[in-house]
Amino acid sequence: MSKFKRNERIAAMVKILSDYPNKLFTLNYFTDRFNAAKSTMSEDIVMVRQAMAKLGLGKVETVAGAAGGVKYVPFSTPDQNREVLNEVCEKLIEKNRILPGGFLYMMDVIFFPSIMQKVGEIFASQFDYSKVDYIVTVETRGIPLALMTAKAMNLPLVIVRINSEVMEGSMVSISYISATTGVIQRMSLSRRAIKPGSRVIIIDDYMRGGGTVKGIIDMMHEFDTEVEGVGVLVATKTPENKMVDNYVPLLIFEEGMTEDNKINIYPNPNIT
Amino acid sequence: MSKFKRNERIAAMVKILSDYPNKLFTLNYFTDRFNAAKSTMSEDIVMVRQAMAKLGLGKVETVAGAAGGVKYVPFSTPDQNREVLNEVCEKLIEKNRILPGGFLYMMDVIFFPSIMQKVGEIFASQFDYSKVDYIVTVETRGIPLALMTAKAMNLPLVIVRINSEVMEGSMVSISYISATTGVIQRMSLSRRAIKPGSRVIIIDDYMRGGGTVKGIIDMMHEFDTEVEGVGVLVATKTPENKMVDNYVPLLIFEEGMTEDNKINIYPNPNIT
Repeated sequence: MSKFKRNERIAAMVKILSDYPNKLFTLNYFTDRFNAAKSTMSEDIVMVRQAMAKLGLGKVETVAGAAGGVKYVPFSTPDQNREVLNEVCEKLIEKNRILPGGFLYMMDVIFFPSIMQKVGEIFASQFDYSKVDYIVTVETRGIPLALMTAKAMNLPLVIVRINSEVMEGSMVSISYISATTGVIQRMSLSRRAIKPGSRVIIIDDYMRGGGTVKGIIDMMHEFDTEVEGVGVLVATKTPENKMVDNYVPLLIFEEGMTEDNKINIYPNPNIT
Repeated sequence: MSKFKRNERIAAMVKILSDYPNKLFTLNYFTDRFNAAKSTMSEDIVMVRQAMAKLGLGKVETVAGAAGGVKYVPFSTPDQNREVLNEVCEKLIEKNRILPGGFLYMMDVIFFPSIMQKVGEIFASQFDYSKVDYIVTVETRGIPLALMTAKAMNLPLVIVRINSEVMEGSMVSISYISATTGVIQRMSLSRRAIKPGSRVIIIDDYMRGGGTVKGIIDMMHEFDTEVEGVGVLVATKTPENKMVDNYVPLLIFEEGMTEDNKINIYPNPNIT
């Protein structure tokens, strides 16, 4: 069986750990894969941890004990978060993005994988997800963002359906009201999607009145499930009173143009 | 400005490259970030490339010239692909997954980020996407898989809507017919989602009659867009004649149980 040089082991270890954030790998996994002694691997892990920390690329954490191992935890500083959010805003400020009804065309941004990956990692640095079981979103536009958040946290994604389909078996349905339009709609979720007694974080792309997220929260109660947090990419400044009290918006979108005729969207100053 | 050790540079370079598959980083990006000479960085890149190759973790490619640089290209061997697909099948063979109508409950598998990431990398090793502009899917279940494929290829994702909404501006709509049910439905796509003259790959989770994918292909013609390939996670064995001729299924799903009373789903033997 081949031996590996330290550089090779370190390169491979970084690749494996960072491909699967928050997944715990045992020391044995690496000693087997690299045909190396435990003491050698432990030294490698220290080096990887220091390199990640020094360059602001996230945390490498070791867990002691029989069920222990090593895992990569995405972590970004407030400065790094602000830089990413400013980049996203730069893309969204062009005035031809305003659609009839005052909505913002965001599809090219919120469906671009590498941008949503960065935004998902920001959400991972805003919430304590150590006891969370699922990331929940509602179809359709929030899915890429919610999936990338779920990836950063190593959690399964649950997608609440606006349009129930035959392929998901027995469903729970609830009515919810759009705070913006006053229209009553139905959302539904497969009975087997969530285990009762779970904890979830809700992630969505856009919040105006908060009716949709309120609907998801009501749905979670039907599943005997606790909502630990709500994150949205964009929240409108008005109405200030939304149907949901506690939520973390990454960007704030105000009606009306800025003085230089750009769309008025900017990072939430409270993001850490 | 701090200097970095070779181990630290290599660890950081692997993290940066593999976080953004198929994104080209200039040599200057790394010399600036690591405060190192070009010759040193070139040596580091060779080491990273060799380590990735030796451990079957993908390719590191250098592009020469003024617009050149280095990028990470996901690549998995047929053996690695088969291993991943066998793992997915293992999860899908339990008989309580059969829903009314003969459909397969797959939500927990196709909404789990790390599994879909692996499957997306398999699609990236099945198609030549060097001239492709977009990954296209249709809401809802195929989105996580399509997003992870788009991530592996560093391409934007386009989501065709079954239920058009107010927030996407001027839309193109077409009718399509479900080969299974004979029901006529409509799908729609925002006029600004795809630049005319583009090339796309279509990715979806499940194909029985092929009517939905046929609908997406028709939609792409409305956008003067060429379909370079179609990939689906699961295709049913019957009907053998589907409405789409050329498609790459990763798994085959046959009606009826296996001898040991499991669901009859297995990797497509033609996957390389």
